[in-house]
Amino acid sequence: MSVHYRSPLALARLAIAQAVDAAGASAIDGYEETLDGVGGTVLESAARFAGEVLSPLNRIGDRSPARLEADGMTTPPGFARAYRMLRDDGWVSLAAPTGCGGQGLPMLLASAVTEMWAGANLSLAMCPELALGALEVLRAHAAPELIERYAARIASGEWTAAMDLTEPGAGSDLSLIRTRAERQDDEWRLYGRKLFISWGDHDLTENIVHFVLARTHDAPQGLKGLSLFLVPKKISVHGRLEPNDIRALSVEHKMGIRASPTCLMALGERDGARGWLIGGVSDGLACMFTMMNHMRLGVGLHSLGLAERALQLARHYARERIQGHDASGAACTIIEHADVRRMLLMMKALVHASRCLAYTAAATLDVAHRSADATVRTRATRRLEILTPLVKAWCSDVAVEVASLGVQVHGGAGYLEDSEVAQVYRDARIGPIFEGTNYIQAQDLLSRKVLRDGGAALGELLEDIERAARALAAASTDPLALLREQLLAGTQRLRAAVVSLIARAGEPDLIGATACHFLHGLGVLAGGWHWALAGAKAAAQPQGAQSRAVMATAAFYAAHVLPRVPMHCSVIEGGTNVLAAALTEDI
Amino acid sequence: MSVHYRSPLALARLAIAQAVDAAGASAIDGYEETLDGVGGTVLESAARFAGEVLSPLNRIGDRSPARLEADGMTTPPGFARAYRMLRDDGWVSLAAPTGCGGQGLPMLLASAVTEMWAGANLSLAMCPELALGALEVLRAHAAPELIERYAARIASGEWTAAMDLTEPGAGSDLSLIRTRAERQDDEWRLYGRKLFISWGDHDLTENIVHFVLARTHDAPQGLKGLSLFLVPKKISVHGRLEPNDIRALSVEHKMGIRASPTCLMALGERDGARGWLIGGVSDGLACMFTMMNHMRLGVGLHSLGLAERALQLARHYARERIQGHDASGAACTIIEHADVRRMLLMMKALVHASRCLAYTAAATLDVAHRSADATVRTRATRRLEILTPLVKAWCSDVAVEVASLGVQVHGGAGYLEDSEVAQVYRDARIGPIFEGTNYIQAQDLLSRKVLRDGGAALGELLEDIERAARALAAASTDPLALLREQLLAGTQRLRAAVVSLIARAGEPDLIGATACHFLHGLGVLAGGWHWALAGAKAAAQPQGAQSRAVMATAAFYAAHVLPRVPMHCSVIEGGTNVLAAALTEDI
Repeated sequence: MSVHYRSPLALARLAIAQAVDAAGASAIDGYEETLDGVGGTVLESAARFAGEVLSPLNRIGDRSPARLEADGMTTPPGFARAYRMLRDDGWVSLAAPTGCGGQGLPMLLASAVTEMWAGANLSLAMCPELALGALEVLRAHAAPELIERYAARIASGEWTAAMDLTEPGAGSDLSLIRTRAERQDDEWRLYGRKLFISWGDHDLTENIVHFVLARTHDAPQGLKGLSLFLVPKKISVHGRLEPNDIRALSVEHKMGIRASPTCLMALGERDGARGWLIGGVSDGLACMFTMMNHMRLGVGLHSLGLAERALQLARHYARERIQGHDASGAACTIIEHADVRRMLLMMKALVHASRCLAYTAAATLDVAHRSADATVRTRATRRLEILTPLVKAWCSDVAVEVASLGVQVHGGAGYLEDSEVAQVYRDARIGPIFEGTNYIQAQDLLSRKVLRDGGAALGELLEDIERAARALAAASTDPLALLREQLLAGTQRLRAAVVSLIARAGEPDLIGATACHFLHGLGVLAGGWHWALAGAKAAAQPQGAQSRAVMATAAFYAAHVLPRVPMHCSVIEGGTNVLAAALTEDI
Repeated sequence: MSVHYRSPLALARLAIAQAVDAAGASAIDGYEETLDGVGGTVLESAARFAGEVLSPLNRIGDRSPARLEADGMTTPPGFARAYRMLRDDGWVSLAAPTGCGGQGLPMLLASAVTEMWAGANLSLAMCPELALGALEVLRAHAAPELIERYAARIASGEWTAAMDLTEPGAGSDLSLIRTRAERQDDEWRLYGRKLFISWGDHDLTENIVHFVLARTHDAPQGLKGLSLFLVPKKISVHGRLEPNDIRALSVEHKMGIRASPTCLMALGERDGARGWLIGGVSDGLACMFTMMNHMRLGVGLHSLGLAERALQLARHYARERIQGHDASGAACTIIEHADVRRMLLMMKALVHASRCLAYTAAATLDVAHRSADATVRTRATRRLEILTPLVKAWCSDVAVEVASLGVQVHGGAGYLEDSEVAQVYRDARIGPIFEGTNYIQAQDLLSRKVLRDGGAALGELLEDIERAARALAAASTDPLALLREQLLAGTQRLRAAVVSLIARAGEPDLIGATACHFLHGLGVLAGGWHWALAGAKAAAQPQGAQSRAVMATAAFYAAHVLPRVPMHCSVIEGGTNVLAAALTEDI
């Protein structure tokens, strides 16, 4: 029997402090006070809620997924009650903008909460996360009367939100969207099908507010012809909620996140689903990016939560399972074995690097929104553009790797569905796929965020990394000397790889062959950046147990993870002209 | 709807020819004639059987796993019929020794067949594979009357075999085995429980022959006190089969290979399970290694089969799925996108490297058993000792990686249980765990097979790799020049890493920290060895489509896979003293 999720509060606090520094967020008025004051209480209540309410439902949800029957969607036992508690305690509105019924707390704080909830129960955690993306798009693009009608209800959790983008023929390529919106008597009516709609239908709330990408009558082909519509499941008519013409046709049977109902939605089977335009006609893409940017950070945090959970389960198992002998010949738990320690340290080193990086993106978002200084906001926005795809893709790939190590630590027990780690392994595999596949993130990062400005914004990040590396002691006897050396060599190597990419600009398969390797090289370096920051602080006060653990894990990251950087750079430098040739053959 | 498994016959033939060369097997009398003659027919019939009979049952087995009810174990619909066909067509005895009712065909040929069956339906393929391990142990260790009574029935498939090693408290550490064997009136009676017993019970055959590790009454503690017993499910009494005191108590609910019944077995609930000793008392470990060595090669082949299947499914999907635009702006299938080609090429490059390596191990086994020259046999045995753990661990880790890429190529569709690739992803995850975890393989490889002789046997393999690399053209304009260069640099680098390991011999965590990285470094080089052999042949006749495909994939392997070698070597050289420190902290 595995233990329930336990929030890593000490590490979350370390990562929060580090993210404030790394994002330069301390200059925001009242920011650190909020984190120290209300933040402390929020983290502790969230930790309790995660461990006591969400975590015990995680296995139940996996075994009894949501079911669609004649009278609608039924969520797993206990989910409706847990959602009501979450709603009544005000969790949905935590980081929602105050103008939209939210509490306006820092996104950094909300990120730590999101990590906990995902670690405890990702399927359920996905539901309130959708509200935040919805509120962002309402605030940024919607007409005041639409905000008036929907924002407070979404922020309070009275109604949930759903993002209806994908269609059977339009996944990564949204230009192929065929759902149409027609103007009838001053109203919009929508017709079409939407696939893979997370929490598209359920029994948690009376109403669900769908955000639907569709094509208006005479809109241009492609992405530019898309508009975003708000399509509620039910519409208020004289104070009563009447059904709109949108419903779930089926629910997917998925490898993981089974408790979250992933729906095929039908719009306009009768007289058309009534919708309200958000932004102007053909503004859909801009609106979508507002939602997507929030969701991309969310996927990174969700993945981080799962990775932390895999680590908890593996560590717990390794401390209980007796097998083999220690150096003295006595029977021992498997955590005594060097290879098991290696796997656990790898998990811990990657998980905490993910945490610091994802939190830093959240703090950077806070700076971009809240700094009083326009130059600082601009710089933070530029940094965020790099961090967002990096966090989505790197943290989700890392979570798959960490979950797999978690299974391996369990041995045969990890392959049984009785063990929660098998569920974590299945749950984690969605991260690299949805909200834009990890290649789409990598392409966005490399072409738009790095090569387009000739590597300038990247250069700023690499300089931050180098500054952190140089703050470490250089003496070869120092435990963090290898971290310093590997980080400085790695940034140099990645810079050279980017120079080589710029020199080859225009080669046909350049981005496709190299983008994922570039993203991973940068992700590993950014993780090392945070171990350098944490290591320097620990080295200044090396006495406590936490400082020693931080320094040991930082040293491990240098020796076992950072060697990946030159590997990725070698592929970038040598691996581009090998794709075209093979396409003509039977691959 | 996915397509059924299609055996990669052309690639299997290429790999067979290459394995004969790499293992020096052509000197075995009649070997190549057999492969060319009967071998061709065998491969084609096996391919048909895999595609037409086994593959259509694969999804059914996943959805309707074996069930244990009051009247016994029921396998999924269609499995009993498929097994009967397999048995009646003589497939079980293909490579079984002729003295044990087998056909004595080369293990190399049987390996190609095993790959196909695992690719089509791993759960079912595991069942006849157990027979081969059982026959090996009977031939090597059992008394003639036991061989007489059981071998032909196992070889014909009339009865199946099961390996009962693991117990609830004894997995990786078999020294903890508690099942006891007691001598009563000239008979052995066994009492205990055995966990994770693949095909421990089923309805395919009338009888099941268990090979059970147990401890005799006054045997020493630890591994040396183990003996191996043959314990049939039913015992022939006056020509009628009567139940023995062994039964399945439960069947595991697993993440994958769900159709294969993995049982908790109880022995001796009443008057003791009657067993027959194989070898002498306390010879259990030697007997077990005989079985295990066979099973380790089997896991490599099974993993290879799954990886090939993931490639087939991904390639098929990528050729059908329309999304995005090609360079001319026209809608295209996703195989046109460079990143998708990169993933498919990565899969193909790794799968075929695994194939050549696993087949080479099988051919080396044939040489070790059949060569007329004792020196050649000794050398082959030495090589096989290196290749066996390498094939088990590297091919199974590669299969997990390839299956994950297969899911990624499918995007959201790959996360649905409707898609077979999700099953492949789940099925593949067992490979690194069972028949000795991959760390146990890595430890065996590094300590026993490499460091113990000071790297001598490893040196022979590295020299073979270098010879193959030097046979490639060196001119920098040649498409395979990078392969040559990376292989030569990689072998040098790995040699240096081994020198550094030898210099540090005795450091406490040396093996634990480095063994997996050593195994992966060597695996990647050994895969490159085979791409060099294939590339050189293709370069000699560069006209045909197959030659161009081979050269393109070999070049891809050089650019995208071989850069992993220096990464692993860096970890080996720098990553050992980072484990001890952290154990004292809260990892």
